[in-house]
Amino acid sequence: MGRFLAILFLSLCLHAEEGMWTFNNFPSAVVGKKYGFAPTQQWLDRVRLSSVRLAEGCSASFVSPSGLLMTNHHCAATCIAQLSTNEKDYMKLGFAAQSPAGEVRCPRQEANVLVAIADVTARMDQATKGLQDKAANEARKAETARLEKECASSESVRCEVVPLYGGGIYNLYKYQRYQDVRLVFAPEFSIAFFGGDPDNFMFPRYNLDATFLRVFDNGQPLQTPQHFKWSKAGAKEGELTFISGHPGATNRQHTIAMLETERDFTNLHRLAYLSEYRGMLTQFQTKGPEQDRIAQDDLNGVENSLKVYKGRQHAMVDKNFFGQKIAAEREFQKRVQADAKLRTQYGKAWDDIAAVQTKFRALYYPYLYLERNYGFRSQLFQHALRLLRMADEFEKPNEKRLEEYADARKPSLRQAVLSPAPIYPELEIEQLTFSLTKMRELLGPDDPTVRALFGKRSPREIATGAVKNTRLLDAAARKALMEGGKQAVAGSHDSMVELARLVDPFARAARKRVEEDVESVLTAGMEKLSRARFAVYGTSLYPDATFTLRLSYGSVKGWTENGKAVTPFTIFGGAYERNTGSFPFALPQSWLDAKPKLDPQTRFNFVTNNDIIGGNSGSPVINKDAEIVGLVFDGNIHSLGGSYGFDDVMNRAVAVHSEGIREALRKVYAAERVLRELEQ
Amino acid sequence: MGRFLAILFLSLCLHAEEGMWTFNNFPSAVVGKKYGFAPTQQWLDRVRLSSVRLAEGCSASFVSPSGLLMTNHHCAATCIAQLSTNEKDYMKLGFAAQSPAGEVRCPRQEANVLVAIADVTARMDQATKGLQDKAANEARKAETARLEKECASSESVRCEVVPLYGGGIYNLYKYQRYQDVRLVFAPEFSIAFFGGDPDNFMFPRYNLDATFLRVFDNGQPLQTPQHFKWSKAGAKEGELTFISGHPGATNRQHTIAMLETERDFTNLHRLAYLSEYRGMLTQFQTKGPEQDRIAQDDLNGVENSLKVYKGRQHAMVDKNFFGQKIAAEREFQKRVQADAKLRTQYGKAWDDIAAVQTKFRALYYPYLYLERNYGFRSQLFQHALRLLRMADEFEKPNEKRLEEYADARKPSLRQAVLSPAPIYPELEIEQLTFSLTKMRELLGPDDPTVRALFGKRSPREIATGAVKNTRLLDAAARKALMEGGKQAVAGSHDSMVELARLVDPFARAARKRVEEDVESVLTAGMEKLSRARFAVYGTSLYPDATFTLRLSYGSVKGWTENGKAVTPFTIFGGAYERNTGSFPFALPQSWLDAKPKLDPQTRFNFVTNNDIIGGNSGSPVINKDAEIVGLVFDGNIHSLGGSYGFDDVMNRAVAVHSEGIREALRKVYAAERVLRELEQ
Repeated sequence: MGRFLAILFLSLCLHAEEGMWTFNNFPSAVVGKKYGFAPTQQWLDRVRLSSVRLAEGCSASFVSPSGLLMTNHHCAATCIAQLSTNEKDYMKLGFAAQSPAGEVRCPRQEANVLVAIADVTARMDQATKGLQDKAANEARKAETARLEKECASSESVRCEVVPLYGGGIYNLYKYQRYQDVRLVFAPEFSIAFFGGDPDNFMFPRYNLDATFLRVFDNGQPLQTPQHFKWSKAGAKEGELTFISGHPGATNRQHTIAMLETERDFTNLHRLAYLSEYRGMLTQFQTKGPEQDRIAQDDLNGVENSLKVYKGRQHAMVDKNFFGQKIAAEREFQKRVQADAKLRTQYGKAWDDIAAVQTKFRALYYPYLYLERNYGFRSQLFQHALRLLRMADEFEKPNEKRLEEYADARKPSLRQAVLSPAPIYPELEIEQLTFSLTKMRELLGPDDPTVRALFGKRSPREIATGAVKNTRLLDAAARKALMEGGKQAVAGSHDSMVELARLVDPFARAARKRVEEDVESVLTAGMEKLSRARFAVYGTSLYPDATFTLRLSYGSVKGWTENGKAVTPFTIFGGAYERNTGSFPFALPQSWLDAKPKLDPQTRFNFVTNNDIIGGNSGSPVINKDAEIVGLVFDGNIHSLGGSYGFDDVMNRAVAVHSEGIREALRKVYAAERVLRELEQ
Repeated sequence: MGRFLAILFLSLCLHAEEGMWTFNNFPSAVVGKKYGFAPTQQWLDRVRLSSVRLAEGCSASFVSPSGLLMTNHHCAATCIAQLSTNEKDYMKLGFAAQSPAGEVRCPRQEANVLVAIADVTARMDQATKGLQDKAANEARKAETARLEKECASSESVRCEVVPLYGGGIYNLYKYQRYQDVRLVFAPEFSIAFFGGDPDNFMFPRYNLDATFLRVFDNGQPLQTPQHFKWSKAGAKEGELTFISGHPGATNRQHTIAMLETERDFTNLHRLAYLSEYRGMLTQFQTKGPEQDRIAQDDLNGVENSLKVYKGRQHAMVDKNFFGQKIAAEREFQKRVQADAKLRTQYGKAWDDIAAVQTKFRALYYPYLYLERNYGFRSQLFQHALRLLRMADEFEKPNEKRLEEYADARKPSLRQAVLSPAPIYPELEIEQLTFSLTKMRELLGPDDPTVRALFGKRSPREIATGAVKNTRLLDAAARKALMEGGKQAVAGSHDSMVELARLVDPFARAARKRVEEDVESVLTAGMEKLSRARFAVYGTSLYPDATFTLRLSYGSVKGWTENGKAVTPFTIFGGAYERNTGSFPFALPQSWLDAKPKLDPQTRFNFVTNNDIIGGNSGSPVINKDAEIVGLVFDGNIHSLGGSYGFDDVMNRAVAVHSEGIREALRKVYAAERVLRELEQ
């Protein structure tokens, strides 16, 4: 084994393709030396402005001058499902707008383009200067709210303070915000997710996990002179590839104490919770075709998360892997302890972080279940709580609010309240019953909060009462409450608002305890370690992923699994071989019909050794000419340990090949409108 | 902490009440020294012959001269559920036979009384002498079959070779076997399991988890001159208590390498599997009252297992606890290495066991899913496979068969085939679909076995086809196949028999690989360690639990939880305070009606520091006069780490108080028939 050895502190021995680099600290020289191509600032700017973040958690890119966005089907699936009805199920049938007017707006989709990055470390440092944990934490949040408000000059600008390297550096990211995103083309779910959960995170794969959206501005397609052109040939073996996208989160800089909490506590709970929820949903789906349809989107998310958490656990219980994380931490500690100045400034950070773990474990379940929705898996409840808190928080000064209610976040809040996405009461009742039952189990029936919330009621009674009698299904009713503000909300006797009102003080208290007693200590400790890391290992580092734009480099390359070579490409023919006719291995009719027209040798999916993680879904794979050669949609099973370290021998990004996409558009779907745009 | 320190190698420093002792090696002198009462051989014999094993996995005791058995409601729940219909649901309503003729036979219950123990270590050693792992393993199985057959002179005798101390000693246990066990009295499920899964493994508790059965012999109540009488006063604080029962399994002598496999691999999988299955079942129950009823028994078992596995995992990820297991192993190793003779004989055992773990992990899923029913959670499938294998195996010489088809096991097999227990096709389809889906997930869709079994069929297609078309629902059809033997079974085109026939070769192959490559090495290694342990620590040890009769001693004693004293008793009044009216906190109508008549101070449940584990459910708690003072039904949450070591500070057995049982029989149920018998 030993394959994780060199990965943990990259500045010591940077492994070939490791790194999710920020656009203002990209190692162009290193890439140039290895691949003979060093990205210039102009090249980086072009790529940045052609790259798009989908605010709900994915990546995308502009692929035409008229705002055409390419992303994964699974990144647009919630929208596609929300636009579907039992009569017209676009998940099943696919979707192709025949004209611009036929492009349909997604109920809740937001696209962001990163237009500027500013360093605000000095201001954040100034704000927290001389303050201790709890006070520092409050000051940090207040300064964040101030900075974001100053930056967001209008609602079409989104600003976020991003702590990088665990807080050693704070950057202010400024995005252009677009909330009118429309569906242009989507294939059938059965080919987008061919192989389903069994094949998820596996390779070889045969997925057309691609969808096209369009960004509109003032009712017109957005003009996007900065966009990616299509490569003529697509990805070739060994070719240099860049992936520009938004990796969500990695924990590579977490201390051993933090990882142990994750391994032995939080992750174990998540695995059990999500497994049970999965069983609930799949059985709910057997109640009928409509139930099958309405639960599928949630199920896809749950199954994906489950594989991720299982993969992470697998990595963390690997003695070799974890042993090397421990060794790396010891080495780092030794270096800090060996330097009197560093020791004084940063030497206690590990112990501080370790000491707070016990407290974190004690506060975790109330926090998770009351404040982080594990106890209230219900869109209606989330609507109610949001309305309630908007009314309360907007009365406070901007920098004193819960952070997600700061002025700079108002456009997202409004979009969430007004979203016309359908809500299914039957499913809501089951979801809420399930989550309330789990809350009672994890907090215990004698917990004072549980007693206060439940009284003599069962989880099902609470859920049924709240869902059946609420008016919040209706976006107009939510709009009225939002616009009525504090007075309207306070006077509401809506059943779901009343449930949220009952829960809110307990949820706020649980959150406050975690923020004051745990988060404050962790943030301070991680900030110290971040600065110690710069001092010891220099500044040519990349930060842990933060769902902000990053660039990784690598090349098209297979790997060796149990002694057998895995070639980096699959072809159309393989999908037909794998077809059984039964979900999730059933090709859609369109593909069966098109078989005679298709060249079975057409490249379909491929892998590269770029360093990516969840959130990179929908990222373009580009060549050195910044041309599309593929579309990231997954990682292989070894990529799941990527949360903690990059294994360049085994970890692979999985993408749809650009030729596979074009060929399918041309011959399976005759999607000439989209094709013409790609070829502009 | 440090509270596990002294527990791991008891001969070094035997912790007060630790130990599940065999009846032929009970530390009477130690007990006498501490409590002023040393059990005599006569006392031990009397207790042994009054103690009963319920073959499906519980304990019980004779409590009248006429074969009246006391056990837990949850030990009889499968029987009670099987006797119930949608019209007459005894789980909901309780059951009380008004006359001997009204006592109803359980479809599948077997009671065993341990009548003799013989040491057969020498014969087993002789059989395996000079043989290596695989050959030794085969010889051991063959000798076991021979010994059991020789011993089981008639079908009313059950004989089992029991490897004790991990195989350092082999004993032959001879039981009187009774297959006619009838239901006499059961309370409502809602009071038997008051508090449900949330309260399971918790204390304080308020459960009447008691049921009375009767053993019949030749159609008449069995005469049982050896039985326990009832204590006048019941358990008092500090009183010496014995628990005689059948603890199922502990892993206290497992090596660190084995425990790591359990912690990092097998247990993680179980937690996810059972959690998902639980979600499936609870959602299935929402389909209607009948579905709710028929799935409840399975759900209870699953929820109980889940808590057990979670508790075990919690113990194993406790760094302090596990660190001490590691320290104890090192100490043991050091002692063995320090002695040239011991080193030569046993020194390699740890490494051998560690080395085989990787192989075990690779073979585990096929074995579990194909051979251990994880892939075929269906009574109908189990019926089919049993019939198929009976036909095949009975053609082989006794000692060459799969062990569960040896001649000595025939009565159990026949009882299983002929059981009139109802089978619910709707539930079977969901269970089989679920388990086949999990099998495909864990083995992978490209696994050759999966390909061979599934072909182009989905899990639901396979399950539906096999369940809907089988005739095996009908016990008469099964009987015909059993009696028709090889020819009848081979000629059967029953859908479920055909599925079993398809699976059988793969299942056998998976089992064979585990037995030859893993089990053989583990058995040899554990046998060596067992003998090394005797050599180093002497012979005053108790063996790991083996679902055979054991006696533990201790006293009625509370504990301290988070600095707060937990008193050892609860009272009737507490149940009324806890009543919410909603499941699982709803008292039955009978208890609500009886409230005015009951003394709220009556002792209901209590705890002792006896060392027990799953399988001890239904065990009598007796005083030094061998009188019933309580009925074990659970352990507290700290008892779950008991799989790996005994923590006398926190680990507690939970029992129904004898007075609580009598008072409820008298005033809630007016169960005069049973009461009179108890008072004989």
